[in-house]
Amino acid sequence: MNYNQLVQEITKKRSFLCVGLDTDLNKIPSILKKAENPVFEFNKRIVDATAPFSVAFKLNTAFYESNGVQGWIDLEKTVNYIKTYYPDLFVIADAKRGDIGNTSKMYAQAFFNSMKCDAITVAPYMGKDSVSPFLETEGKWAILLALTSNEGAFDFQTLELKNSDSTLFETVLIKSKQWGSKENMMYVVGATKPESFKKIREIVPEHFLLVPGVGAQGGDLEHVAKYGMNKHCGLLVNSSRAIIFADNTENFDKVAAEKAQEMKQQMDALLKLSGI
Amino acid sequence: MNYNQLVQEITKKRSFLCVGLDTDLNKIPSILKKAENPVFEFNKRIVDATAPFSVAFKLNTAFYESNGVQGWIDLEKTVNYIKTYYPDLFVIADAKRGDIGNTSKMYAQAFFNSMKCDAITVAPYMGKDSVSPFLETEGKWAILLALTSNEGAFDFQTLELKNSDSTLFETVLIKSKQWGSKENMMYVVGATKPESFKKIREIVPEHFLLVPGVGAQGGDLEHVAKYGMNKHCGLLVNSSRAIIFADNTENFDKVAAEKAQEMKQQMDALLKLSGI
Repeated sequence: MNYNQLVQEITKKRSFLCVGLDTDLNKIPSILKKAENPVFEFNKRIVDATAPFSVAFKLNTAFYESNGVQGWIDLEKTVNYIKTYYPDLFVIADAKRGDIGNTSKMYAQAFFNSMKCDAITVAPYMGKDSVSPFLETEGKWAILLALTSNEGAFDFQTLELKNSDSTLFETVLIKSKQWGSKENMMYVVGATKPESFKKIREIVPEHFLLVPGVGAQGGDLEHVAKYGMNKHCGLLVNSSRAIIFADNTENFDKVAAEKAQEMKQQMDALLKLSGI
Repeated sequence: MNYNQLVQEITKKRSFLCVGLDTDLNKIPSILKKAENPVFEFNKRIVDATAPFSVAFKLNTAFYESNGVQGWIDLEKTVNYIKTYYPDLFVIADAKRGDIGNTSKMYAQAFFNSMKCDAITVAPYMGKDSVSPFLETEGKWAILLALTSNEGAFDFQTLELKNSDSTLFETVLIKSKQWGSKENMMYVVGATKPESFKKIREIVPEHFLLVPGVGAQGGDLEHVAKYGMNKHCGLLVNSSRAIIFADNTENFDKVAAEKAQEMKQQMDALLKLSGI
């Protein structure tokens, strides 16, 4: 999926919501536990319920890997389900990969070819040759960690560099934007740090930002939109637990849909405010 | 496996070799391609052939994930095979994971519980709470990326920080050594940068260093030992392609054993030189 297609989808649906499928086997409703394949069954119903209000799904690979082979089966089946029934939705493997060139190439194959994800999150620590293999396929995206939503973001990301006016995360933005373009790179910026969006938008005015941390982690959607939105929206705001685990009765999917719809309505208003 | 057990294994075997199972389906001998499970068959024979000369195996998860569900099956079966038949060998998941706390906890479960790996490589960019969940199980290890062997290491890792005499990778060492101890943390230091070992040993004199990049990537074992070895050895030197793909006939395992034995002999001499 390219930049314009994603922008069109946002404009059409009046939403920039990404639903995070952090599907924890221990948290899914007990009525599903008897199903042959509880995680996939849960994901299918969440996808069907929330797709009308969202433009993207993000699958956190850790939650699948923790279930071993069955988890990897669930991951593949879920990506395949979304791409079959909702081909216009953007699918992100939240895998935070990154390794030397020949290894990153293997990860790109895993998530872009074996699976049909549109994007993968990538850690920047190993530099250009660890990121470039994710930028080589048209319509596929690397989403580079810039400023994350957790406490540990202050350990290294916000340190200032010598002979520069920039912090580490700003330097990641400055250097890496030369490796790709707004057509194949996005950045992860935590919603918990909305005051940083202004500086980030000076460095990468046009790129999409993937923003986790709204909801359970305490980030505020209005602040994110105020400081992070650009003229094409340029935001994918993720919500995971606050949507998918909002209810654990047999109505879990209906409640998830309501939560997603509420966010979509807020997003619609924020898009209008920005003249989109 | 704890620090002393690993040191004992090195002393007993006269080797600090880690064999990297970067098993690329396209590179394994054609005679194995007819096997029901070519990757696992290849790994089993490489493990049996090289175990006498090595103290560790490192499985690069990218090579398995690129084969989808079957790859994850091969990964689990290989770890299980090593832990069943060679319980004294140290098994590393070279997965370069790292995410917010509740997600890293899931990765720890994936590699330490679902699989029985002893250690996992972790990217430091997201800071303390992304690393700590890997330090909570006795006998299990996080191996944090410090200075990697690739060209991209110079993009961020070697940048100097303001108000400090340290580069980013040195700061990663300085901060992170307070998060754990030599009993549950190691560091990745590329063999391609032996001149850096001296400074690294000033910061982490006792920790084990996992050293990739010897062989195919151009690193030199003698330099690594000269600058990186401590009084308990403190090194695991990895070789992947130079051992496992040294030959692609039906004798591939015998040739791999010869290559591993050659390295073990060099290592034995280097251990003696250091009085170990």
